[in-house]
Amino acid sequence: MNLTDSSKFPLVVIIGGGFGGLQVAKKLADKPVEVLMLDKHNYHTFQPLLYQVATGSLESESIAFSLRKNFASQKNFRFRIAEVSKVNTEKNIIETTIGQIAYDYLVIATGSTTNFFGNKDIEKFSMPMKSIPEALNLRYSILQNIEEALLKPTKEERDPYLTFVLVGAGPTGVELSGALAELRNHILSKDYPELKKEDMKVYLVDFLPKVLGPFSDEASHASKEFLTHMGVEVLLGMKVESYDGEEIKFEGGKIIRTKNVIWSAGVMGVVPEGIDKDAIERGNRIKTDNICRVVGTTNIFAIGDVAAMITDETPKGHPGVAQVAIQMGQHVGKTILQLINGEPTTPFKYNDKGSLATIGRNKAVADLGKIKFQGFFAWLVWMFVHLISLMGGRNRVIVFINWVSSYITYNGGTRLIIRKFEKEGLTEDEHLPKTVD
Amino acid sequence: MNLTDSSKFPLVVIIGGGFGGLQVAKKLADKPVEVLMLDKHNYHTFQPLLYQVATGSLESESIAFSLRKNFASQKNFRFRIAEVSKVNTEKNIIETTIGQIAYDYLVIATGSTTNFFGNKDIEKFSMPMKSIPEALNLRYSILQNIEEALLKPTKEERDPYLTFVLVGAGPTGVELSGALAELRNHILSKDYPELKKEDMKVYLVDFLPKVLGPFSDEASHASKEFLTHMGVEVLLGMKVESYDGEEIKFEGGKIIRTKNVIWSAGVMGVVPEGIDKDAIERGNRIKTDNICRVVGTTNIFAIGDVAAMITDETPKGHPGVAQVAIQMGQHVGKTILQLINGEPTTPFKYNDKGSLATIGRNKAVADLGKIKFQGFFAWLVWMFVHLISLMGGRNRVIVFINWVSSYITYNGGTRLIIRKFEKEGLTEDEHLPKTVD
Repeated sequence: MNLTDSSKFPLVVIIGGGFGGLQVAKKLADKPVEVLMLDKHNYHTFQPLLYQVATGSLESESIAFSLRKNFASQKNFRFRIAEVSKVNTEKNIIETTIGQIAYDYLVIATGSTTNFFGNKDIEKFSMPMKSIPEALNLRYSILQNIEEALLKPTKEERDPYLTFVLVGAGPTGVELSGALAELRNHILSKDYPELKKEDMKVYLVDFLPKVLGPFSDEASHASKEFLTHMGVEVLLGMKVESYDGEEIKFEGGKIIRTKNVIWSAGVMGVVPEGIDKDAIERGNRIKTDNICRVVGTTNIFAIGDVAAMITDETPKGHPGVAQVAIQMGQHVGKTILQLINGEPTTPFKYNDKGSLATIGRNKAVADLGKIKFQGFFAWLVWMFVHLISLMGGRNRVIVFINWVSSYITYNGGTRLIIRKFEKEGLTEDEHLPKTVD
Repeated sequence: MNLTDSSKFPLVVIIGGGFGGLQVAKKLADKPVEVLMLDKHNYHTFQPLLYQVATGSLESESIAFSLRKNFASQKNFRFRIAEVSKVNTEKNIIETTIGQIAYDYLVIATGSTTNFFGNKDIEKFSMPMKSIPEALNLRYSILQNIEEALLKPTKEERDPYLTFVLVGAGPTGVELSGALAELRNHILSKDYPELKKEDMKVYLVDFLPKVLGPFSDEASHASKEFLTHMGVEVLLGMKVESYDGEEIKFEGGKIIRTKNVIWSAGVMGVVPEGIDKDAIERGNRIKTDNICRVVGTTNIFAIGDVAAMITDETPKGHPGVAQVAIQMGQHVGKTILQLINGEPTTPFKYNDKGSLATIGRNKAVADLGKIKFQGFFAWLVWMFVHLISLMGGRNRVIVFINWVSSYITYNGGTRLIIRKFEKEGLTEDEHLPKTVD
């Protein structure tokens, strides 16, 4: 069971089983290398559907897939649950929670985490949604706050529990605010007969003057209209000043009383220690050359959200989307084999297939190159693309059934509080009873 | 939002949304009463399939159903997440985590929990499986221990992590040991290519000389044979002396080194404070008369696992199975209406529909009155009965798909560690890193 035993083949260590890491490992199947993947979870997360886990439309296990199971038939693949604390680029060793591991090639595919831009209060009191445990925490927190509202005798006391403020109007904020609006419009008064839909408020806030910043103007306008029509209050050009768990304050003086601030206003790369400080770019991303190789190294690659390939054509790097990670992963797999064989490498070139975002039933936006469309057909395309991208036939079938059932009944999903969520940092009085059961 | 506001109808408070509590509430639909159900979870748990959650064959949400959603159309039904600490039988008030509530009729349907028979060490180090959070903890613990085994260099060190001892050979122990044996036989070496099926050991232990004690001898013999054939070591007539997290010791000197002891050797009723001590029977059950009314009270009922209806015909009460709870629930619903209307009540009579237990694929045992059969047909009956008993069409479809997929592939289910499990009471060194993420 020694991970660094002497194989005659070079060892490629991949840190992270996200979209990028998966592709590297796949490309190396049946090749004369050993592959070791490390991840702190034993599953791949299909992040584009996290928001449906947060609102209870999908079960967490439908958007996750066992990394072991996925690679069960790949002979040169091994997997360990581990977190990497440090890279020793000189000795070609990483330090991990399961000990030191020597690599021949290292692929850093650690992805990104929520960026609170140094605001400790916002980090303490708001909810991020970048992983399945975080999406589940968010779900439980939303449901617990609705339950809590039922116990309050006055509207004044109930309001903060039923007010949801989403900061960051990128795809995550747009999709989640749409899903919360649907919960409000179609489910709230069914599940909680004491409440009317007017009792719940959903705000979507961004510093920028438009929603879905990187999308086309058509997509941006349409999604704003869809959201407004569904009852989401879209507040643009608004900068958050502070949030103390009770009130979110904006520059200019606006204040919203809320127990629910969901933060999707930015991400930053997850970089292990030991990477040269000069190689760290804006957003905590690792600077690479045009073959995704970390600058100043010969055998370390960075791909996906954690990578910043700064070239003349891409002065800011690539967008933090799944397609970039996937394509970089495929490219790096190929590149490592070329390096081993002493063949010339080719520069990475991103093939932008376009962007999709869904707002609600029958409502999505699609920017596919020059073809842009919004509404029902975009929604069908969105569903199709996400279904085929999911890992595992069983997951596809189950997600499909869930979607069909939700579409027909207007009341899909289970909204179960499996484990009570307790936000760290709440004052003693606000603590929910801490139970695992 | 006042729970005890003055309605013209009497208030029936039901503590617990299990099999029994559900039926009481259903029976009272559209009747001139107010119904308030309290449960510490916002969902009903289909306990007979908990073991499949523990082994990762089913997702927790497939065997749970939202109590709010289930009663969404019942106008006189309200629900609150709450735990009841005390009953004041004189003032007709209960004390709960959400405050005091005055009742006109009270139904105690709190079910049972694991009975460790006062052995604190066993309670500390073994795993129970009576709720969804416990089944998930067990799943994560099993998977983490397999992962841990991979990090150990010698067989001697690996063995305890890969040895599973199930104490209690009732339906839970039998079904869970069968499921673990299937994991060992069909999945282990696929998911963990470093391991062979011989590396994993499953023991099923009972103090009694037979498995499935309350079943027929035919069922008992067949299930023991099935289990043995699948590689489970069945140890009967063995009494556990101690377990310290490392070694389980039996009377007579036998010792098994194991990190995985799963305890299903007994249950005890969950009784709120305030119930007359004289009304507490063996197994911490509440003694009732033949209409399920708690002895010494006029308006308090106990049903299901927490009830002990001691009559001449049932000197030990009824078995702790779902059917008893269901039938008692229906009876108590009817009885409460009779009492309100001043009509005569009728004594409860249990209609035993028989018992089923599954051991593995194509293997189950059925005792249906005088008809007893074992094997493939019993397995089909078991599946059919459990599918139709599940709440919610969506759950039925999803469980069915999972079962079909498992049957075809021999490798169903996801085995994801969504949250690391940390057993309380482990010594500092054995602590796994504590993370919510």
